[in-house]
Amino acid sequence: MTVRKPSIAEMLDIQSVAIIGVSMKLGYYWVHSMLQWPHDLKVWLVSKREGEVLGHKIYADIDDIPDKIDYAIVAVPRKVVLPVLKQVADKGAKGATVFTSGYSELGTPDGKEEERKFKELVEGIPMRVFGPNCMGLCYPRLGFAFAPTIIKRMGDVGFISQSGGVAISTYTAGAESGVGFSKLFSFGNSVDIKPPELIRYFQDDDETKVIGAYIEGVESGSELLTEMKVLAKKKPVVVLKGGRSVEGSRAVSSHTGALAGSQDIWSAAFRQANVPTVTTLEELVATLSVFSLSPKPKSRNIGMVAISGGTSVIYTDMCVGAGLKVPTTSTDTLEKLDPLIRDVGTSLKNPIDLAADYYSDQTTAEVLRLVGAEPNFDSLIFEADVHHIHQVATIMGAADVVVDFWRAMAEAAREVSIRHEKPVLVAVPDIAYPQARKEAWDIFVEKKLPVFRNMQEAVTALSKVCDYYEVRERRSNM
Amino acid sequence: MTVRKPSIAEMLDIQSVAIIGVSMKLGYYWVHSMLQWPHDLKVWLVSKREGEVLGHKIYADIDDIPDKIDYAIVAVPRKVVLPVLKQVADKGAKGATVFTSGYSELGTPDGKEEERKFKELVEGIPMRVFGPNCMGLCYPRLGFAFAPTIIKRMGDVGFISQSGGVAISTYTAGAESGVGFSKLFSFGNSVDIKPPELIRYFQDDDETKVIGAYIEGVESGSELLTEMKVLAKKKPVVVLKGGRSVEGSRAVSSHTGALAGSQDIWSAAFRQANVPTVTTLEELVATLSVFSLSPKPKSRNIGMVAISGGTSVIYTDMCVGAGLKVPTTSTDTLEKLDPLIRDVGTSLKNPIDLAADYYSDQTTAEVLRLVGAEPNFDSLIFEADVHHIHQVATIMGAADVVVDFWRAMAEAAREVSIRHEKPVLVAVPDIAYPQARKEAWDIFVEKKLPVFRNMQEAVTALSKVCDYYEVRERRSNM
Repeated sequence: MTVRKPSIAEMLDIQSVAIIGVSMKLGYYWVHSMLQWPHDLKVWLVSKREGEVLGHKIYADIDDIPDKIDYAIVAVPRKVVLPVLKQVADKGAKGATVFTSGYSELGTPDGKEEERKFKELVEGIPMRVFGPNCMGLCYPRLGFAFAPTIIKRMGDVGFISQSGGVAISTYTAGAESGVGFSKLFSFGNSVDIKPPELIRYFQDDDETKVIGAYIEGVESGSELLTEMKVLAKKKPVVVLKGGRSVEGSRAVSSHTGALAGSQDIWSAAFRQANVPTVTTLEELVATLSVFSLSPKPKSRNIGMVAISGGTSVIYTDMCVGAGLKVPTTSTDTLEKLDPLIRDVGTSLKNPIDLAADYYSDQTTAEVLRLVGAEPNFDSLIFEADVHHIHQVATIMGAADVVVDFWRAMAEAAREVSIRHEKPVLVAVPDIAYPQARKEAWDIFVEKKLPVFRNMQEAVTALSKVCDYYEVRERRSNM
Repeated sequence: MTVRKPSIAEMLDIQSVAIIGVSMKLGYYWVHSMLQWPHDLKVWLVSKREGEVLGHKIYADIDDIPDKIDYAIVAVPRKVVLPVLKQVADKGAKGATVFTSGYSELGTPDGKEEERKFKELVEGIPMRVFGPNCMGLCYPRLGFAFAPTIIKRMGDVGFISQSGGVAISTYTAGAESGVGFSKLFSFGNSVDIKPPELIRYFQDDDETKVIGAYIEGVESGSELLTEMKVLAKKKPVVVLKGGRSVEGSRAVSSHTGALAGSQDIWSAAFRQANVPTVTTLEELVATLSVFSLSPKPKSRNIGMVAISGGTSVIYTDMCVGAGLKVPTTSTDTLEKLDPLIRDVGTSLKNPIDLAADYYSDQTTAEVLRLVGAEPNFDSLIFEADVHHIHQVATIMGAADVVVDFWRAMAEAAREVSIRHEKPVLVAVPDIAYPQARKEAWDIFVEKKLPVFRNMQEAVTALSKVCDYYEVRERRSNM
């Protein structure tokens, strides 16, 4: 007899959550996670040790909960995972996160046998399960989080991850950069819920415009790639593949017990599916950021506004190295820029390096507007040089008004992005002065501009975005 | 008649500095720069507009200064640069920084003609000149700085740069990362002091152990490469070459008026000279950091200690991609590690990912010591996961003692580096929580460990350092 399993969408219709295995270890991690954001979810706590935490009663047994459960977070010792799963299913749960580890990732016969039993049980209950060995679900709109102390940032980025750590880091770094998420799924050993189904889910999820994925290895590689190919025709999907090297693949095996597979095959398949790939978390977040926060670039032509001639040279080499184009400013725009500029150390030909004229907020904001209107540039990268601005503002006794400078820049940049439908990327290099940098950073984030930790991140991300759209357009014309 | 010119070493024997062209513009930038650090230098200020600034009298004329001048910073309008240079030479100056721009970098006949006259004058006076169009000299031991609001960080890194902006950013980012400098030379249009002489100077400078260079283009490329080759046999030299692309080369021309030259020829020559090259400022600082702060790695074998299985997989791929090796932990060390570990989500095989055990400072510090003694690893990379530690410490109400955690890690890491003469690199990823990150960062810097803004930086830098030493050893054995 086969049971009727809920779909992912059905599972996500959640009004009440139970945390089974509330533990003081790590400071009631799951309780803090689930209660940090305001929401309408009912949260039930269960632990052998009764009592109260954060104003919530702890029940000694799942059956003591005086209501149905929609979703369960299972963080109990391995030996009681199966009875707990059965019990929450009986209480009506359509889904569960199994945080508990100690299964196939151990690489031992015992771990594999436990995973086999896990699978057998889960197949027989009308419930969907993330894991084991995972962080499961994060769904900001519902107020459902899988980590404590994080900003609530809703948006249109969906994410799937074999690793809970990667899912949390991606969410946290993304939220810090203004990237909002629709939902994140961390699937760990993926006994029940597997990547192909999640990718299929995102194909029709209206809350999700762009998808990121961290994949180590899957049983059903070809199925996953087929689903990704379908998805990539409608929405961009960016992949970080773990276990590309032999040594990385060994690490994968002790992490989620998966087989990483041949890197060459994966690479070719991602290319074939028009799925941009990245190799670091920083690149992943940066690329999702451009897809989510920027209009589609019309070409690879970019204009750059920066302060120093030397760094402008380096940035130009970076752009060209990443396959972007740095055309010269048109005569028309040059004529408009020229009257604004007083300093001789300046070049307006693109890269536009303003030297000492950068210090005038009126000049730099106006330069951004003029350069934003330049037909030769289909994207703009602005270097927010916190470092020099902080130095000069400090000696001029103006450090307290420097935020006004960044507000003027953010407004001009945002205006360009909207009026001319062009990506305007902001690089805020991490040279020194962390406090001043954080203040500038937050101003750009507030204006919904994509921000980057350094110029290389911005350039690489923009280039990958151009790759994706070019291929998609070419293929749709075939 | 040719005049006798001082050598670079003679020029650097400075007791008194005059700033000619003290200007309120940019808040007395040069005055703040020269007066920010405690030092024994006499500082004289000259400007048409007499008065006082920061407690220093402003003289109306150079000849009014009641003493000799050793070095002059010339920041006057272009039309008076030449008479000023002559006048300071007459007052005994052996060296000068010419900050003024408007010469060959303009690309105009007028700019070129002015530079020709500049050259002619300088050749006839017994004085050495940086520039024009440059920031000149920074010499922390003397208290001589070329930018305001920067940390005084003395050390063994020498730096030469065509660009003043790049020199300042490298210094500032380096100082923030604990990298100390012997002296920095920004030479701009390099009419008198040119890169080959500076490289030659560093060959025998006992204050300098490693050298960085930002080069756009030079007249005497083959001379520079010859000197670099000689230097690289004794000391590592790391180069960032600007103008590698056609567009970057166009930007070079409007920046310092130089010709960037063929990238292929430069690349081949750097390889031939055993000079590691980098493409970003971040990589440059990271590579200088490892050369300066770490013992020489005995091989490419590294051990990694991190928190998450997923990021450990990504890091392993990065290492292998960068040409490093990630061997497995020996049985001997595994036996010592095993009793320390309680969490099942852990892998000890290298990468060593500690999962929840990472949160115990005693465990992680002891793991670092044991892994540091492991003969299979000749370097160690430690991921300082500020992000997870901050989250858990916050919900446990222990955020105020989290610095003790990082102190314990920094002590263990430093101990390993010294006792086993191994590089121990610390990556402090920039995920979120900037204040918590800054506190952890500073603790590692204080312990003189090389710190990195993300794992990729650490890995790339270590790999370049291995490249250099391997080639040097192979060649010395031929």
